[in-house]
Amino acid sequence: MTMPHPIKSHDKPLAIVLLSGGLDSATVLAIAQQNFYCHAISFNYSQRHIAELKAAESIARSSGVDHRVIRLDDAVMTGSALTDARIDVPETASKGVPVTYVPARNTIFLAHALAVAEVLGSNDIFIGVNAVDYSGYPDCRPEYIEAFEAMANLATQAGVEGGRLTINTPLIRLSKAEIIRTGIDLGVDYARTVSCYQADAEGRACGVCDSCRLRRSGFAAAGINDPTRYRKLPR
Amino acid sequence: MTMPHPIKSHDKPLAIVLLSGGLDSATVLAIAQQNFYCHAISFNYSQRHIAELKAAESIARSSGVDHRVIRLDDAVMTGSALTDARIDVPETASKGVPVTYVPARNTIFLAHALAVAEVLGSNDIFIGVNAVDYSGYPDCRPEYIEAFEAMANLATQAGVEGGRLTINTPLIRLSKAEIIRTGIDLGVDYARTVSCYQADAEGRACGVCDSCRLRRSGFAAAGINDPTRYRKLPR
Repeated sequence: MTMPHPIKSHDKPLAIVLLSGGLDSATVLAIAQQNFYCHAISFNYSQRHIAELKAAESIARSSGVDHRVIRLDDAVMTGSALTDARIDVPETASKGVPVTYVPARNTIFLAHALAVAEVLGSNDIFIGVNAVDYSGYPDCRPEYIEAFEAMANLATQAGVEGGRLTINTPLIRLSKAEIIRTGIDLGVDYARTVSCYQADAEGRACGVCDSCRLRRSGFAAAGINDPTRYRKLPR
Repeated sequence: MTMPHPIKSHDKPLAIVLLSGGLDSATVLAIAQQNFYCHAISFNYSQRHIAELKAAESIARSSGVDHRVIRLDDAVMTGSALTDARIDVPETASKGVPVTYVPARNTIFLAHALAVAEVLGSNDIFIGVNAVDYSGYPDCRPEYIEAFEAMANLATQAGVEGGRLTINTPLIRLSKAEIIRTGIDLGVDYARTVSCYQADAEGRACGVCDSCRLRRSGFAAAGINDPTRYRKLPR
């Protein structure tokens, strides 16, 4: 089957980068750009923190990469504090999988990335999952990513024809402080990123949700000034 | 995390059934209904043969099952004869993966089914893939399904908490004639189903595409009268 190749040949191979608009994925994009021509994708799933999509656009534009927002059906990834306004975002740490977990989110995201990779002729997908300073989501663990990659290599025409798709997770074993130092070295402007699970429309962070706490601790541990705009003072 | 359970307790466990509106998935639904309370899902991806969605609604209604159509982004699964009107549907057999292959389609479908299963508290997904009388799509092979199931069991909170998700593929080793005989025994009304890759708005089949050829041969081999409505006489 002949696939259209809307992106013309480049000096570097093409990678598909999942760009949420947060700190981690902005860092991944900067890492990927060292060796790849990048096509960034974001998802609109009516997430509570929709401000992250504006952040993603800003990051993609300032990085000079192709970017698109893929629209998902509102009625699928439900029952999470990130998709249901009736469920409060916790402002203290919790045990186990938290209520901010979104059902099958990374599987749906990576499945779309797989389609985009196949259509555009890319063998590399980048995702900013992390299993150190993270919220305990099952679909951020290394064993999950390895299983997705194995499945993906059986799923597509590219795989049948001998192509080898790689799910690249350059952050998976890094601490938040290490991620931030890496990004600073690569020139990432973290003021553009939005990590907060309940950011307001202007992208200002609450400072107290799990994602804000991980981010704040990371800047502190890295000894780097935190450029996050908070809407109330962090406790 | 507490998930909402919009479907109340039933005598049977709940299954999520991928229902395309074609012959295979209608048969799968009938098989699943023997042992499960079924929630059927279909996908609108602006497929050329959109008539299959009407067929899916008709099948779901006559089967008395819950049904929903999930909307996918038009701009993802491109470059296929089933999603791009500029690419003709072949009317003769071809070698290798045909132009009707849709990039990562079953992975995107199953990823959504996984989210629905987790939200509704189901451990069983049914899909009508078949590796005997099929179009040669990579994402219909048993090894692909096994890899998806392994990945799915690492992806979700349900998996972390000890739940065991099964991707059920009751047709995978059956010939088309065996599928049809099974469905007839279970009372499937194949007149409601649409298999044609280029069915018209009324669901009438071309009779010559790969899907029509497999279906016609199946009815002939099963010795069962073919109830398909053709818009031109099969050659």
